[in-house]
Amino acid sequence: MKKSLLFTPGPTPLPPEALLAMAQPIDYHRSETAVTLIKDVLQKLKHVFQTENDVLFLTTSGTGAMEAAVANLLCCGDKVLVIRSGKFGERWGEICTAYGVEIIPIDVAWGNSVAPEAVESHLTAHPEVKAVFATLCETSTGALHDIEALARLTRHRPTLLVVDAVSALGADDLQMDNWGVDMVVSCSQKGLMTPPGLAFAALNRRAWNAVARSNLPKYYLDLRKAHQSGLEGSVPYTPAITLLTALQCALNRICAEGIRNTIARHNRLAVATRSAIKAIGLPLFAMSPANTLTSIRLPEEIDGKAFIKLMREKHGITYAGGQSHLSGKIARIAHLGWMNENDVIIAISAFERGLAEIGYDTPLGAGGTAAQEVFTR
Amino acid sequence: MKKSLLFTPGPTPLPPEALLAMAQPIDYHRSETAVTLIKDVLQKLKHVFQTENDVLFLTTSGTGAMEAAVANLLCCGDKVLVIRSGKFGERWGEICTAYGVEIIPIDVAWGNSVAPEAVESHLTAHPEVKAVFATLCETSTGALHDIEALARLTRHRPTLLVVDAVSALGADDLQMDNWGVDMVVSCSQKGLMTPPGLAFAALNRRAWNAVARSNLPKYYLDLRKAHQSGLEGSVPYTPAITLLTALQCALNRICAEGIRNTIARHNRLAVATRSAIKAIGLPLFAMSPANTLTSIRLPEEIDGKAFIKLMREKHGITYAGGQSHLSGKIARIAHLGWMNENDVIIAISAFERGLAEIGYDTPLGAGGTAAQEVFTR
Repeated sequence: MKKSLLFTPGPTPLPPEALLAMAQPIDYHRSETAVTLIKDVLQKLKHVFQTENDVLFLTTSGTGAMEAAVANLLCCGDKVLVIRSGKFGERWGEICTAYGVEIIPIDVAWGNSVAPEAVESHLTAHPEVKAVFATLCETSTGALHDIEALARLTRHRPTLLVVDAVSALGADDLQMDNWGVDMVVSCSQKGLMTPPGLAFAALNRRAWNAVARSNLPKYYLDLRKAHQSGLEGSVPYTPAITLLTALQCALNRICAEGIRNTIARHNRLAVATRSAIKAIGLPLFAMSPANTLTSIRLPEEIDGKAFIKLMREKHGITYAGGQSHLSGKIARIAHLGWMNENDVIIAISAFERGLAEIGYDTPLGAGGTAAQEVFTR
Repeated sequence: MKKSLLFTPGPTPLPPEALLAMAQPIDYHRSETAVTLIKDVLQKLKHVFQTENDVLFLTTSGTGAMEAAVANLLCCGDKVLVIRSGKFGERWGEICTAYGVEIIPIDVAWGNSVAPEAVESHLTAHPEVKAVFATLCETSTGALHDIEALARLTRHRPTLLVVDAVSALGADDLQMDNWGVDMVVSCSQKGLMTPPGLAFAALNRRAWNAVARSNLPKYYLDLRKAHQSGLEGSVPYTPAITLLTALQCALNRICAEGIRNTIARHNRLAVATRSAIKAIGLPLFAMSPANTLTSIRLPEEIDGKAFIKLMREKHGITYAGGQSHLSGKIARIAHLGWMNENDVIIAISAFERGLAEIGYDTPLGAGGTAAQEVFTR
C-alpha cells in the first residue's frame, strides 16, 4: 500500500484545503474576487517576510525573482559581490554575468557558510560594489548564512544586500526590516506550501531607489509594474491564478500559527532530524545547518543514487539527492512547509530502513529515538 | 442558484479531470514520473502547434514567451517590423524597445487586420529587418491576421516571422510547418484549457540559427536551456508541475479530438456566435473575426462596464470588457477551449437577457435562434 511522501526542498506537500482550492472552477484574474485575493495574499506575505515593505509577485519560479533582482537593481558594468557556497550562490553569479554585471566572487567550500569578516574585507577593498548577493539557505548544501551579520555590514554602506530566501522563507529566520536587508526574493513551493509557479520579492526604500536608476533591459520581470499593479490588487500580465488561491490557503495557516512560531516549528523539526542523523552515525554535510533541510553525507560504501531511487520506488519516500559534484554523495531531507513531528519520524525511520536494505550496517531505531527525545524535551 | 461560467479569452474553463489532477498530492519535478510527464506533454504540443519542431515550455504567462522570442532571436540595435493592431501587437513593440531593438511599426486601426501588401512594401523598403512580429488573433479586438500570407512573404527572405498565438492556438488555424512560420509562442490558459502559468514556444531551424547569434541578455528566459532540458524530460528551473499535470489532461482531449477537428469546432462556435450577434442587431467589432473570441460593439446608449458587471454579479457569466480606449465600448465573448454548442447558447441567451435588463431594446430569442440554425446546418 504505497503512500507517497515528499521530503524534497521544493516542491513541498500541500495542505488539503490548498489542493481542493485548485480543483475549484477557475476564475477570471481581473474580477473583483481576484482583486480581493491578490490584495489579501500580498498583505499576508508581509507577515511572512517580516516586513512593512510591499511584497510583490511574479508568475515564475524562484529563479525569475532572482533575475528580476539583478535586472531591476543594477546597471550594465556595475560591480557586485557574489557569495558562492553552492549551486544557488553560483546562480546569482551566472545571472549577473548574463546581464554584463561584473562579479567579484567570494567562494566558500560547499557545505560551509560565508564568514562575515570575508565579506567585510571585500566591501572595504571594493567600496564601489553596488550590491552583495547572498543566500539565506544554500539549498544544494543545507547551509545557513548569517544574513543578520551581513546586513550589519551593508546597512550603513551604500551597498545593497540582496538575499535569496527561495527555499528558507518561513523556515529560517529572516527579519528583513529589523536587520536591514534591502531586497528579499522567494517563491511558492517551499515553506509556503504552494505549487511552483509564483515568485515573490520585497524591496526597501534603498532598493527602490536603485530600481529607479537601473538601465538593464526587462519587461516581464519589471518590478515597478508588478509593484504598482499589486497595490491595486491587479497584475500587468495574466497571473497563475490557481496558485494564488492555493497560496491564500497556505498563508492562512502561517498567519494563524504566526511566523515566529512557524520558524520555531521548523527549528524543532531540524534539531530532531540532525540529532537522529547523528544517532544513526552519519555526518551532517553543512557546517551551519539550516532549519529548511538537513544534508547528510552518505557512507562511501553505498551507492547514493541507488539509495534515493530505492526510497522512492519501494517506500514512496522522496528525498533529494546531491546536485553537481555532490550527486550520489549526499541525501537531503527537507522538513519544510506542511510538516510536523510525525513527518520527521517517518523521514528518519524510513531512512534507517533504507540504509539497512541497501546493505549498510545501521542501528535500527536509534534515529527515531533521538528525534523522540528532542520532541519530548 | 449561481452557476459561474467563464467566457473570457483566458483563463478558460478547465475539464474536470484537469481540475482533479491538480488536487492530487504534488510530486517532485525531478522524478522519473515527471520526466515521463514532461516528455509526453512536449510531444503532444507538437500536434497542437502543427509542427515537427520541438516545442519547449517556460513557467511564465504568455508575455514571458513573447519576451523570450525577442531576447533570444535578436541583437541589440537590430531592426524589426512590428504589426500593431491592438494591445498585444503593441506589446511586441514595447518588449523590443525595452531591449534596445529598433522597431518599424505597421499600425493598423484596432479591429482591423494588417494587409499583407503593407507588410510586403515595408519588407521591400527595409530589407535589413531581422524579424516581423505578428499576432494570430489580436485578443484585444478579436481580429484574426492572415499569418499564411505573411509567411509567404518571409519564408524566402532572411527575415523571420514570429507569431503571438497566445490566445488563438488550438482555436484558429496556424500551420507552423506548412506555412513556414519561424517561431510561434503561446500559453496554457486559452485554447489549452489549463490554468495560467505555462508558456510555450516552437522554433524552426532558421529561428534557432538566430538564437545562436543573439547577444541580448537572458537567463530564466534562455530558450536553449529550456529546449535542451525539455528533450530530456527535464527543466533548468523548478517548473509549475501541477499545471503540467493539468495540461496533460487537456492535451489528451485535444489529441483525441484531433487538432483539425478542434479548430473546426471553434470555427463552428464562432460562426454561430457571430450569427447570433448579428441577429440581435449589434455590430461585430473585428473586420476579420477570429475563431477565438467574438468582439461586439455595445450600443452607445448602454454603460458597457455596468453591463459586464451585471452579467457577472447577477448571472454568474463573465465576459471580458474592452481594454485601453475600448473600455466600456465593447464586450468580448470567448468560445475557447473546453466549449461546445451548449456553452454558446448560454453565452448568447444570457447576453440577450442582460441587454434587456440594462434597458436596451433587443429581440429576445433572436440570437439563440440564429445560433441554433448554424448548429443544425
